[in-house]
Amino acid sequence: MLMSELIIKKRDGGKLTAEEIKFIIEGYTNGSIPDYQMSALLMAIFFRGMDSEETLHLTMEMRDSGDVLDLSGVGITADKHSTGGVGDKTSLVLVPMVASLGVKMAKMSGRGLGHTGGTLDKLESIPGFSIDVPREQFMRQLDEVGMVIAGQTADLVPADKKLYALRDVTGTVNSIPLIVSSIMSKKLAAGADTIVLDVKVGKGSFMKTDADAHKLASEMVAVGKLAGKNTVAVVTDMDQPLGNAVGNALEVREAIATLKGEHSGDLLELCLVLGSCILTASGLCDTMEQAREKLLGTIADGSALKKLKEFIAAQGGNPAVVDNPELLELAPYDMNITCDTPCYVGSIDALGIGMASLKLGGGRVTKESEVDLGVGVVVHKKVGDRLECGDRIATVYARTFEDMELGTRLVDDCIELVDEKPEVLLFIREIVT
Amino acid sequence: MLMSELIIKKRDGGKLTAEEIKFIIEGYTNGSIPDYQMSALLMAIFFRGMDSEETLHLTMEMRDSGDVLDLSGVGITADKHSTGGVGDKTSLVLVPMVASLGVKMAKMSGRGLGHTGGTLDKLESIPGFSIDVPREQFMRQLDEVGMVIAGQTADLVPADKKLYALRDVTGTVNSIPLIVSSIMSKKLAAGADTIVLDVKVGKGSFMKTDADAHKLASEMVAVGKLAGKNTVAVVTDMDQPLGNAVGNALEVREAIATLKGEHSGDLLELCLVLGSCILTASGLCDTMEQAREKLLGTIADGSALKKLKEFIAAQGGNPAVVDNPELLELAPYDMNITCDTPCYVGSIDALGIGMASLKLGGGRVTKESEVDLGVGVVVHKKVGDRLECGDRIATVYARTFEDMELGTRLVDDCIELVDEKPEVLLFIREIVT
Repeated sequence: MLMSELIIKKRDGGKLTAEEIKFIIEGYTNGSIPDYQMSALLMAIFFRGMDSEETLHLTMEMRDSGDVLDLSGVGITADKHSTGGVGDKTSLVLVPMVASLGVKMAKMSGRGLGHTGGTLDKLESIPGFSIDVPREQFMRQLDEVGMVIAGQTADLVPADKKLYALRDVTGTVNSIPLIVSSIMSKKLAAGADTIVLDVKVGKGSFMKTDADAHKLASEMVAVGKLAGKNTVAVVTDMDQPLGNAVGNALEVREAIATLKGEHSGDLLELCLVLGSCILTASGLCDTMEQAREKLLGTIADGSALKKLKEFIAAQGGNPAVVDNPELLELAPYDMNITCDTPCYVGSIDALGIGMASLKLGGGRVTKESEVDLGVGVVVHKKVGDRLECGDRIATVYARTFEDMELGTRLVDDCIELVDEKPEVLLFIREIVT
Repeated sequence: MLMSELIIKKRDGGKLTAEEIKFIIEGYTNGSIPDYQMSALLMAIFFRGMDSEETLHLTMEMRDSGDVLDLSGVGITADKHSTGGVGDKTSLVLVPMVASLGVKMAKMSGRGLGHTGGTLDKLESIPGFSIDVPREQFMRQLDEVGMVIAGQTADLVPADKKLYALRDVTGTVNSIPLIVSSIMSKKLAAGADTIVLDVKVGKGSFMKTDADAHKLASEMVAVGKLAGKNTVAVVTDMDQPLGNAVGNALEVREAIATLKGEHSGDLLELCLVLGSCILTASGLCDTMEQAREKLLGTIADGSALKKLKEFIAAQGGNPAVVDNPELLELAPYDMNITCDTPCYVGSIDALGIGMASLKLGGGRVTKESEVDLGVGVVVHKKVGDRLECGDRIATVYARTFEDMELGTRLVDDCIELVDEKPEVLLFIREIVT
């Protein structure tokens, strides 16, 4: 088999066979196929696409390029993935709720990059918390506590690491089969039986249109099912940030408040929908309504909050943050943006708010950047909300006075105020099963 | 400027500016842009194309990546390029004809690869002939003899060497802007004022359709003119081999015979058309008819044959081959394929004949292959010719008896005999000015 001929086959719209995809991924992982041939193939895939069968083969070969976790003795297992957004602290709320109902969740999370945050950074704002979980602790904690959120503990999908680094510098990130295989190979290698996918759509996410988001969601569900997993995808709005807080410690505070029943907005709604998908797909509940009741019960009876405490303690963090969120340190300067005339919130630019948090020091420009865990933005209102004179619109948390001036200006530019109540897009766009 | 952003710009159908193309070619030539980014860009260009302005900028930047010959003091200069075919010994006939009329031609030729032959290999079948011409001899010979055909004497277009090697293994050879810039950068660097291009179309060439050949011809002429050169392209048939002989010494023998006036078929016709284009484009003749008469005169009065002798002698070859072509040694075995029933020649597969000559040892499978200069095929008839019982159709020249059996079978398969006189395609399809 000649790589140059496989490139030409795909370039001319041909379909790659399972054997050809195996040859490509094995060769690229072991170095016998050079970067310059792989990048030409990636660009040909960008233009020609791949059908579900090709995408499945690609995903399976990538999964098999490294370790595959065996969670078969653990019980009912689930995993969740989000395609990345602004203010997305879903895992911190969803996983304790679901784990308190007996579904084991072992999440390997990532760090933030650019305008999107990362769950690991958020967790590190908890004093003492460690995202490094040794393999034996990983399995024991999953068994005893029912949840783990950690950095990658095993050598999962080395092919994806190499491919992603190449895609990043060759203009081949935004290709649905390549996104699907990258996400799904990691989810399959992580070993859970049920996979729920949160596909973001809108200005703050990779997928800009409902049609693109639907395509990505459908392809991921198809590949997950063909690989023998219970797989569901939910398409959700990311035009405005999720919830209110953007910034690491701020988001952990919001997650705790949500588990205390102090919030009832889009963040809680998303966790209820994703959680219901997990409970029904894994067979624990018969209907979405029944699942929703159970999930709301974990907040009402405090079991989800208790699970969060156990989890924090298991990974070395101070569980007292749950009762005293002030232990999650914020930056010294904060300033409110207020309203000086009655109006409505017309739009909140999620990408812009994410960039503002990044510029305040709360994110990473490059993979090597240091993150300031205490800075960020809280947007107190959502699109469509009514504002009266003097109402707080947002609060900016900054390390220096200069940063605060900059941050306030940036955030102000992201929030459009209008006279008429605007039409509000559906937050949950679609559930793809 | 970031290469990854330029890849995305072209991927999304954008137009690269002169500065961006300069950045790309300089960076790729000096190594600051890696192969894997260049190959992704090449694939994006394959899908998105380039307009004439982008192609011009690419061509000029490639030209300027190395030496550019200055022929300004030499007089009227011309150059010819063929996109490659089977049996193409045009340079050996055309250049002496034109040079004997006072147009200086300095051709840097190539070696054969695959089914296409190379002028340098053909010339090396002349005893003593050297294709290595030192720089000072090159200019003196051009001045005194009026023609040079040599391997590359200067460091011309290093960007093309590097790019071509990359395109060859990344499925990005067949892209019109990339072919145009590769050919035209070398022609521009070689310094002649008039450039005539022979674009082959048909089974034995890269361009399979008249439409593709027209597009390539038009783009090359546009770029040549924008670069200030008199540029003309001729689109010619390569469904059947050019002339009769395929193989190195055999083709030199046919070229000599043509200059002696012993042939009057497509090879002579092509040389008259290309030569007329050179004489009119460079201002030496007012009309194509006048130019044709002058060129026929160089055969009638022996001046073209005399020029060929001077040229062979100047490059160390034995000029006696012109009077005694038997000095051009042929392989020991030859066998005729004859006709056993009256018929017409329906088709002659140029690619198949080229492959047969390659398998007899007359070509190169890889760049390192040794070439047997004495083997090959002579097809005595052309498509549409009438054959009677016992007429010779072709003769195969082989080094061994086994090769001859193989060669005869391969050649026999390439020649289709039919009962009705077939329609014969126009040999000169188009002249693009």
